[in-house]
Amino acid sequence: MAGNSFGKLFQVTTFGESHGVAMGVVIDGVPPGLTLDLEAVRRDLQRRRPGQSDIVSPRQEQDDFEILSGLLEGTTTGAPLTFIVRNKDARSGDYASMQNLYRPSHADFTYEAKYGLHDRRGGGRASARETVARVIAGAVAKQVLAPLQLEINAFVSQVGSIGMAKPYSDYNLPAAEMNAVRCPDPEMALAMIAAIEAARRVGDTLGGVITAVVKGMPAGLGEPVFDKLEADLAKAMMSLPATKGFEIGSGFQGVTMKGSEHNDKPIGIDNTADGTRIQTASNNSGGVQGGISNGADVYFRVAFKPVSTVMQSQQTIDVDGNPVAYSPEGRHDPCVLPRAVPIVEAMTAIVLADHWLRLKTLR
Amino acid sequence: MAGNSFGKLFQVTTFGESHGVAMGVVIDGVPPGLTLDLEAVRRDLQRRRPGQSDIVSPRQEQDDFEILSGLLEGTTTGAPLTFIVRNKDARSGDYASMQNLYRPSHADFTYEAKYGLHDRRGGGRASARETVARVIAGAVAKQVLAPLQLEINAFVSQVGSIGMAKPYSDYNLPAAEMNAVRCPDPEMALAMIAAIEAARRVGDTLGGVITAVVKGMPAGLGEPVFDKLEADLAKAMMSLPATKGFEIGSGFQGVTMKGSEHNDKPIGIDNTADGTRIQTASNNSGGVQGGISNGADVYFRVAFKPVSTVMQSQQTIDVDGNPVAYSPEGRHDPCVLPRAVPIVEAMTAIVLADHWLRLKTLR
Amino acid sequence: MAGNSFGKLFQVTTFGESHGVAMGVVIDGVPPGLTLDLEAVRRDLQRRRPGQSDIVSPRQEQDDFEILSGLLEGTTTGAPLTFIVRNKDARSGDYASMQNLYRPSHADFTYEAKYGLHDRRGGGRASARETVARVIAGAVAKQVLAPLQLEINAFVSQVGSIGMAKPYSDYNLPAAEMNAVRCPDPEMALAMIAAIEAARRVGDTLGGVITAVVKGMPAGLGEPVFDKLEADLAKAMMSLPATKGFEIGSGFQGVTMKGSEHNDKPIGIDNTADGTRIQTASNNSGGVQGGISNGADVYFRVAFKPVSTVMQSQQTIDVDGNPVAYSPEGRHDPCVLPRAVPIVEAMTAIVLADHWLRLKTLR
Amino acid sequence: MAGNSFGKLFQVTTFGESHGVAMGVVIDGVPPGLTLDLEAVRRDLQRRRPGQSDIVSPRQEQDDFEILSGLLEGTTTGAPLTFIVRNKDARSGDYASMQNLYRPSHADFTYEAKYGLHDRRGGGRASARETVARVIAGAVAKQVLAPLQLEINAFVSQVGSIGMAKPYSDYNLPAAEMNAVRCPDPEMALAMIAAIEAARRVGDTLGGVITAVVKGMPAGLGEPVFDKLEADLAKAMMSLPATKGFEIGSGFQGVTMKGSEHNDKPIGIDNTADGTRIQTASNNSGGVQGGISNGADVYFRVAFKPVSTVMQSQQTIDVDGNPVAYSPEGRHDPCVLPRAVPIVEAMTAIVLADHWLRLKTLR
Repeated sequence: MAGNSFGKLFQVTTFGESHGVAMGVVIDGVPPGLTLDLEAVRRDLQRRRPGQSDIVSPRQEQDDFEILSGLLEGTTTGAPLTFIVRNKDARSGDYASMQNLYRPSHADFTYEAKYGLHDRRGGGRASARETVARVIAGAVAKQVLAPLQLEINAFVSQVGSIGMAKPYSDYNLPAAEMNAVRCPDPEMALAMIAAIEAARRVGDTLGGVITAVVKGMPAGLGEPVFDKLEADLAKAMMSLPATKGFEIGSGFQGVTMKGSEHNDKPIGIDNTADGTRIQTASNNSGGVQGGISNGADVYFRVAFKPVSTVMQSQQTIDVDGNPVAYSPEGRHDPCVLPRAVPIVEAMTAIVLADHWLRLKTLR
Repeated sequence: MAGNSFGKLFQVTTFGESHGVAMGVVIDGVPPGLTLDLEAVRRDLQRRRPGQSDIVSPRQEQDDFEILSGLLEGTTTGAPLTFIVRNKDARSGDYASMQNLYRPSHADFTYEAKYGLHDRRGGGRASARETVARVIAGAVAKQVLAPLQLEINAFVSQVGSIGMAKPYSDYNLPAAEMNAVRCPDPEMALAMIAAIEAARRVGDTLGGVITAVVKGMPAGLGEPVFDKLEADLAKAMMSLPATKGFEIGSGFQGVTMKGSEHNDKPIGIDNTADGTRIQTASNNSGGVQGGISNGADVYFRVAFKPVSTVMQSQQTIDVDGNPVAYSPEGRHDPCVLPRAVPIVEAMTAIVLADHWLRLKTLR
Repeated sequence: MAGNSFGKLFQVTTFGESHGVAMGVVIDGVPPGLTLDLEAVRRDLQRRRPGQSDIVSPRQEQDDFEILSGLLEGTTTGAPLTFIVRNKDARSGDYASMQNLYRPSHADFTYEAKYGLHDRRGGGRASARETVARVIAGAVAKQVLAPLQLEINAFVSQVGSIGMAKPYSDYNLPAAEMNAVRCPDPEMALAMIAAIEAARRVGDTLGGVITAVVKGMPAGLGEPVFDKLEADLAKAMMSLPATKGFEIGSGFQGVTMKGSEHNDKPIGIDNTADGTRIQTASNNSGGVQGGISNGADVYFRVAFKPVSTVMQSQQTIDVDGNPVAYSPEGRHDPCVLPRAVPIVEAMTAIVLADHWLRLKTLR
Repeated sequence: MAGNSFGKLFQVTTFGESHGVAMGVVIDGVPPGLTLDLEAVRRDLQRRRPGQSDIVSPRQEQDDFEILSGLLEGTTTGAPLTFIVRNKDARSGDYASMQNLYRPSHADFTYEAKYGLHDRRGGGRASARETVARVIAGAVAKQVLAPLQLEINAFVSQVGSIGMAKPYSDYNLPAAEMNAVRCPDPEMALAMIAAIEAARRVGDTLGGVITAVVKGMPAGLGEPVFDKLEADLAKAMMSLPATKGFEIGSGFQGVTMKGSEHNDKPIGIDNTADGTRIQTASNNSGGVQGGISNGADVYFRVAFKPVSTVMQSQQTIDVDGNPVAYSPEGRHDPCVLPRAVPIVEAMTAIVLADHWLRLKTLR
């Protein structure tokens, strides 16, 4: 399986370059008979698109999709589902200035080293625009998962040094959608927005952390020993542009705890129509034991580095190794976090849909 | 591909349960004509085995392997290479006490929820004993990678709250092997060992962080967009028992930096016989851009939770949901970190070998 | 990997239904730096399309493709290559008559049994129209294989009971393209054409055999033990619509020979710049030994059943099990063989490209 | 996925060389909770082993297996199941004579061309001994399929030029086990045995055809468009040593029929507790339409070439290209067909188990 496909039973293949004709996705393994809610797909695309608020890139991309295959009168047929989104607002001219240099912390050099050539029109395949295909696939995955009645919520929990102090359970997570930065804490959101605007004013950029929480998990998702649920989630998140870290449950903080504190003591069993869950006094495990979900909330955090394209002059080298100054043109995000929230949700849903189909083979 | 296989071209399949007949591994995709250094395999197994020092489990497992296939007069043939290690010291009796309860933060419940039954003889497939197979595969992977002359070094950088303060470049990394805890800072190592012994005395356990560093990386390893090098490394690490987090390069700390600081400015190009590398003024990226290695050191950190088996009485429930007290017997590690160092190296080598073979298809 | 993908390193994923929006293909694993000859792609599509002669379906489909991704100024980049062909001439009305019945020897029932619903607009995913995507992928595969200077020639060797008597080596194989039925024996071609026309006049259909020959094979292609070259060729051919048999080398006839006759005695070794080939006194093996090519011609035969859509009234049942008479409308091929020739070549090239890339990992 | 694995959900990986330590198989994807009938595994191995009758190789191999993993008190756990069979009767000495030559129609040259070296001790990985691992996996697959109550019967339908004239429905297929050649027609069996003995007396060998029939098929097995049931069966059969052809249903004979004759007219629908089947007046399709089973018998034929090792002096070349005479030693089968019957059944069961698990993901 080549590198542009993800998943074993719910299999997503993306294609397209940022300044090529179109971005697209083939989704194979969608169960038949699902009446697809295309408005839901559009809503997630809308959450990802630039231009939706003052703190993201002002580019206006509509991201209207066309469905090429897999639907019959609005219903899935078991055939591969293909969506494309044409690249309307691609100003290649913006990128002329960088034709012969290596942008700092971009993939220009590595693509060239690997492939012998590189599509410099805005990052080509390395561009975050590729995630438009993932958001579509994620919106489909959410609908595949509908029978499980999961709640998948991602939100911005940190921007630069400004982070939420309280645990996620203290917040109404869907409220994150009510502000531009997608943080469920309204006051913290204001501080984050201010920080992003301050960074933008000086042509700089910020990173941050997105937290994702899945409530209503059934027990049994995840496949030992390599395709553990947290392993596939980690791969999914670390395959996103700009991500530098993943932690689940207690994560890096948990290493300072003693085993006697960290252990999640079982206190009861919850037998419901849709399966059995164990109840524990704490959830440092993040909802997984031995790579398999136990029914508690799955929650994890994803670190995003600050955007590499800063609107300042930076020192770099050209393709011959000579020092040059590089000042980008174009319209860029000072902070990618708000737009990455639906992308994190999408990859989460894709992983869960794949593992749910895999679980079915045991039933 | 089922959940017990890892890799696409260098493909590792592990089998065996902790208290079953044997642990084993089939490695498919090993290039032919490689004279295998079996002593090197034994050395890595020796580094992983219990009983090697005072701060790990006192169990005495020799872990002698038998090679069942793939070698002809000591040389690989292109056929799958199979190693097994028989389970000699499996005292099932130690586990009798836990037959009908769910151990806190163990996989007893989740295996039962998924498979309808669970091998309670010491964790079955969920046991860390499974990693003996990974260490063997990793030792083979290192030999496959020999032409690249990489240096792969993992070491313990944090135990509980005791962490190394200085960057890895300030240390002689192979010196980590000179103390029981495998930390390259000798003073810090003493503190870590003392902490582990203190925890053990009270029947408690500690977690920590392992850092891995790969020097001598060629540019070009990693496959956009899903099989990025860091994505596959993250999956590899998060598929290990007890891991809760992965970060590469600047990781979670990097999110507090500005883009202008975080960017790794190119300063030169290094053309050598074995390829081209870019030189950068910093390496916040951890040696990857766009999912592809750039030739700088690849370094990452892996969080391990404290060992779940604490030698204290803990409250839990039995399979009927009734509260019971659980006090484990047997011989367990108060801190798994020292023995996990060769395992992290092994999974690193497996990922790199797979991506090196994948790179060859482009040449 | 889901069922709409084929190949491990040269990976082809097709999508689209016969009466949907478009047919398409994503090709992942195409080596970078290949300047794609799009005219060659068009030529192969032209050979597959209906309306090209009097003995095939008179439908006029232009099959103009659009490239959505993977090309930069005409050159492959290592990114997935996506082609689509819109379905212009889809007359769904032609299929209204069959909405509630099961056409004899069609996939109506089986799709319904499997998926719970079926796209009856002309076969949906089961339609031979899907092969337009394979022909495109095959044309790309041929270009990937260009350095090997293979000659891949398929031709019609039998129509109904009219078959070529002489071995393929007695013919100029490319001359098959000079007549409508694609048989390299001009006299036999006339007889075949006459038979097809006779069948069409009475509303009936014919089957036949396509033979494929690959000259210039390097030794070493094919992967024991399951991905043998002949195993992958067999799968490729048997995944085509209407195929009922595959044989390589001496095939079913060879079973009547004695071992002493059948054995291909080696007579010399041919060392050339592009590798070593063995020379044998005969080639009953069809160019493979132990699943690996030996450098001799790879040749095989594929049986196609007569087209299921006959222009006669046939007895069948409706979805409730009641007997009904079925008379198809629309425009159909009386014999699919001539148009299947480029499809067989395409699948051959796809298999060979995949195995060539796999061989590279050993070098 | 490397070449020594087969199947997507029921995944079989074989390892071992004919004159190495052991043959073995890892089976991943076996559903948990299956109490394995090990006697049934032994019975199938017994049917495959040499020395079971006068017309096969007189080697005495007991093929006792050891189970290394995956069973807990006789029951599958969802963990990979591993069996090994040690190679007891491996007389490497027998093969000393062929160390430096290329045996006619063997894989000596091709392995050397591909891998740069070759295990000449009896064929290494190319030896038919590898099929011992497949028979074990097939015996497990049959038990996985038990709920479907299929009847899988393979039998020898042709040896050399002696073939059964009547359709399979005229015979009691399990009766094939009552004679040494495994042909359900007792008179024909005598003729076949006589032919094999005659060939053996002159040191020659015979090929033949094995027919397989699966009764009780549910509708719905098979995955368009590449993983069609017949495509996966074809690959499975063509991955066996010595196979040169595969045909399903009417096969190569069917190409001489008219479409109006060949079509299988539906005559009724059979609704049962375990699904719906269509009833047709004929079964030229061999139980598949559009790559998916329709509930009719799946039947197919597999061509085996005559055994390459003839007990006569043959002309060949040594590794330097010089002509030499080659006379094999050792104990070989004059006709491999009788022993190949359980192997064909095993591969059939493996394909069906894989597709049954895949079907479950749609339910």
